Amino acid sequence: MSEHVYKQIELTGSSKTGVEDAVQNAIAKASKTLHNLHWFQVVDTRGYVEQGKVDYWQVTIKLGFRVDDTTSL
Amino acid sequence: MSEHVYKQIELTGSSKTGVEDAVQNAIAKASKTLHNLHWFQVVDTRGYVEQGKVDYWQVTIKLGFRVDDTTSL
Amino acid sequence: MSEHVYKQIELTGSSKTGVEDAVQNAIAKASKTLHNLHWFQVVDTRGYVEQGKVDYWQVTIKLGFRVDDTTSL
Amino acid sequence: MSEHVYKQIELTGSSKTGVEDAVQNAIAKASKTLHNLHWFQVVDTRGYVEQGKVDYWQVTIKLGFRVDDTTSL
Amino acid sequence: MSEHVYKQIELTGSSKTGVEDAVQNAIAKASKTLHNLHWFQVVDTRGYVEQGKVDYWQVTIKLGFRVDDTTSL
Amino acid sequence: MSEHVYKQIELTGSSKTGVEDAVQNAIAKASKTLHNLHWFQVVDTRGYVEQGKVDYWQVTIKLGFRVDDTTSL
Amino acid sequence: MSEHVYKQIELTGSSKTGVEDAVQNAIAKASKTLHNLHWFQVVDTRGYVEQGKVDYWQVTIKLGFRVDDTTSL
Amino acid sequence: MSEHVYKQIELTGSSKTGVEDAVQNAIAKASKTLHNLHWFQVVDTRGYVEQGKVDYWQVTIKLGFRVDDTTSL
Amino acid sequence: MSEHVYKQIELTGSSKTGVEDAVQNAIAKASKTLHNLHWFQVVDTRGYVEQGKVDYWQVTIKLGFRVDDTTSL
Amino acid sequence: MSEHVYKQIELTGSSKTGVEDAVQNAIAKASKTLHNLHWFQVVDTRGYVEQGKVDYWQVTIKLGFRVDDTTSL
Amino acid sequence: MSEHVYKQIELTGSSKTGVEDAVQNAIAKASKTLHNLHWFQVVDTRGYVEQGKVDYWQVTIKLGFRVDDTTSL
Amino acid sequence: MSEHVYKQIELTGSSKTGVEDAVQNAIAKASKTLHNLHWFQVVDTRGYVEQGKVDYWQVTIKLGFRVDDTTSL
Repeated sequence: MSEHVYKQIELTGSSKTGVEDAVQNAIAKASKTLHNLHWFQVVDTRGYVEQGKVDYWQVTIKLGFRVDDTTSL
Repeated sequence: MSEHVYKQIELTGSSKTGVEDAVQNAIAKASKTLHNLHWFQVVDTRGYVEQGKVDYWQVTIKLGFRVDDTTSL
Repeated sequence: MSEHVYKQIELTGSSKTGVEDAVQNAIAKASKTLHNLHWFQVVDTRGYVEQGKVDYWQVTIKLGFRVDDTTSL
Repeated sequence: MSEHVYKQIELTGSSKTGVEDAVQNAIAKASKTLHNLHWFQVVDTRGYVEQGKVDYWQVTIKLGFRVDDTTSL
Repeated sequence: MSEHVYKQIELTGSSKTGVEDAVQNAIAKASKTLHNLHWFQVVDTRGYVEQGKVDYWQVTIKLGFRVDDTTSL
Repeated sequence: MSEHVYKQIELTGSSKTGVEDAVQNAIAKASKTLHNLHWFQVVDTRGYVEQGKVDYWQVTIKLGFRVDDTTSL
Repeated sequence: MSEHVYKQIELTGSSKTGVEDAVQNAIAKASKTLHNLHWFQVVDTRGYVEQGKVDYWQVTIKLGFRVDDTTSL
Repeated sequence: MSEHVYKQIELTGSSKTGVEDAVQNAIAKASKTLHNLHWFQVVDTRGYVEQGKVDYWQVTIKLGFRVDDTTSL
Repeated sequence: MSEHVYKQIELTGSSKTGVEDAVQNAIAKASKTLHNLHWFQVVDTRGYVEQGKVDYWQVTIKLGFRVDDTTSL
Repeated sequence: MSEHVYKQIELTGSSKTGVEDAVQNAIAKASKTLHNLHWFQVVDTRGYVEQGKVDYWQVTIKLGFRVDDTTSL
Repeated sequence: MSEHVYKQIELTGSSKTGVEDAVQNAIAKASKTLHNLHWFQVVDTRGYVEQGKVDYWQVTIKLGFRVDDTTSL
Repeated sequence: MSEHVYKQIELTGSSKTGVEDAVQNAIAKASKTLHNLHWFQVVDTRGYVEQGKVDYWQVTIKLGFRVDDTTSL
């Protein structure tokens, strides 16, 4: 078990709602093509402003997944 | 379009509710005197504690806006 | 007043719900044995993924409290 | 001389041409309303891509200037 | 109280004497035009040398103040 | 529009000429196999020396692109 | 030669033995599907504890490889 | 000798006077309950402002001490 | 399970032998008084030199453990 | 070959022209007294302003060279 | 003037008295063998503790000086 | 004793074997021309890859030594 290898990729998710939803959107998109998703770390939280309000949030995560024999690196 | 100049200022917003609301409060205040607000980046998330609970959140953002001929730098 | 001494410790709280709840869980646990809790700073936001969704959030904070004569450092 | 006070502000300049031109554009804009500009430090270099080429560069600087009695902080 | 908004600006104070005096000089200058000064953080400590001695100290601080309705951002 | 997901990859481009050309070389190579290239950030600038001159520049960028249904993550 | 383009990916290797072995495990896994592996940099060293001992090491590296015409970015 | 284990804790000391005195206050408080204090590192220097002057300094240190058989970690 | 709270402390272990042994020494000492040790992260690697050789290694780790009802924070 | 030892020194070069020329000036000066210059990394990019224009650029590099038996460290 | 080249070296000065004196001690020592000393930046402030008091301060600076034709790099 | 001045230089050692050996190689080389070597800190760990294996390790250290009257800075 201890000799697993993991890869981390960097994704940015967006949301009208907030930080948690932006992270969830990025993970949902990734889970369509990647298996073995394991953990994430928030590395940047930004957003865009329209008319004195946050228009949408953009949260960048590192997303880690276990590399198996079918993983294309 | 590409030769726009932007300024970033650093503001801290507060909220009883959470991170997103604290950011929104800072942006709402800034939009009263600044035009062309464009984006923000969260640079610090803190808060104060009372009786074993978060009393309020304090979130510091860099807030970017386009400089035009009427902007006082 | 100005000669108070504060200690900061590093805790990680978890939550199914989101960032604010994970912070609150860490503070609630700390308040059972520590007095004079004063402020916190978020230093890391992570989480675990199950089946294409965030399973739970893990938020690490520095938690500051005033040292008094009964505090064991 | 040694008791001068300086303020630093953060500006982002843009250019189709490159890093030096983007910096120069930010400084030129600032010099219209600020006096005593003294030094700058590059803190971020970014850009946008169109059709496989850099479309324009965006360089963020800290720009320092001496505060005198007429400076609005 | 918790919904106050704060702005931080970056100033560099100078002094022949030392770190504390350079900080005090920057704050004294700022207090001439800014109200509600609240806190500061030292972000850089430098100086210039003449004839084998420190000629003067230059200390850069972030200086935070509460934004009220008369504050020009 | 706000729910787009972006991926960032890290590339190093080289050039005999300078920083801008090294960035452009990395982007040109990436645009052969990636669509929707959007922005970049310079994260490291290095180079090699031969006979007292810069022989070539090596500039590392993060390159961001929008993830669509055909993107292999 | 100077116009080569390199990509860096981030991998975490594990080992019961130690730092060097964890790095080697990550590289061995990557070399099964990637060509032109060139260099690595250690960016994080962690591990898990069981019964008062390190159970296994987890070392995260950036791994750089030259991009050629057959590389899927 | 070489197999000693040290613990570092993070304390913030305050002083009306300046940086050195704030550090000394934190160390004096710690020495009441901790033995084997060995070294410190300044990690943050802040302060509060009243009426255009520094009201008090707050200096955060990491304080290292040797762990012996009676140390409660 | 997801609502566990963890504490991280910072320890420095020493060893004549090398990095892994210094980490193991710190963990062995901690396990005498702390339960539920879970993970560590290396945050600094240093050492002392005698007669042109490394005399001993000093490795600083953050050591994380689960807080339960008997944990003194 | 693999047991070479390298030293890095930190130099700041200046130029009226731009970043690349400032780096080249630092390397040219170093190559008068140092052999085996190998690589550099840009660690700071600054400059001075006169009359609304960049007067000259100051770029700080780490410059690496192989240590041989005649090198004075 | 703008084409000067500067070198920065890293020195640690010590003092029983405080930060400013430790810096001054490092500069005084350097000025015995180096000419053209120009500026310094404080990069680390540490110290050692004896009997509940700071025994001496250790302040690390980068010290910059202009390289002329007689400078041994 | 407390008024000693130390200099830190940055060296990179290489080794086929691993991290500890690369550090030892750098220190052994330095000890041929420098006296009073005192401590080191690892600041970067890299390596080169050949045929799916680490070919050699490159570890960069800051190496500190006491400055005496015969030290050429």
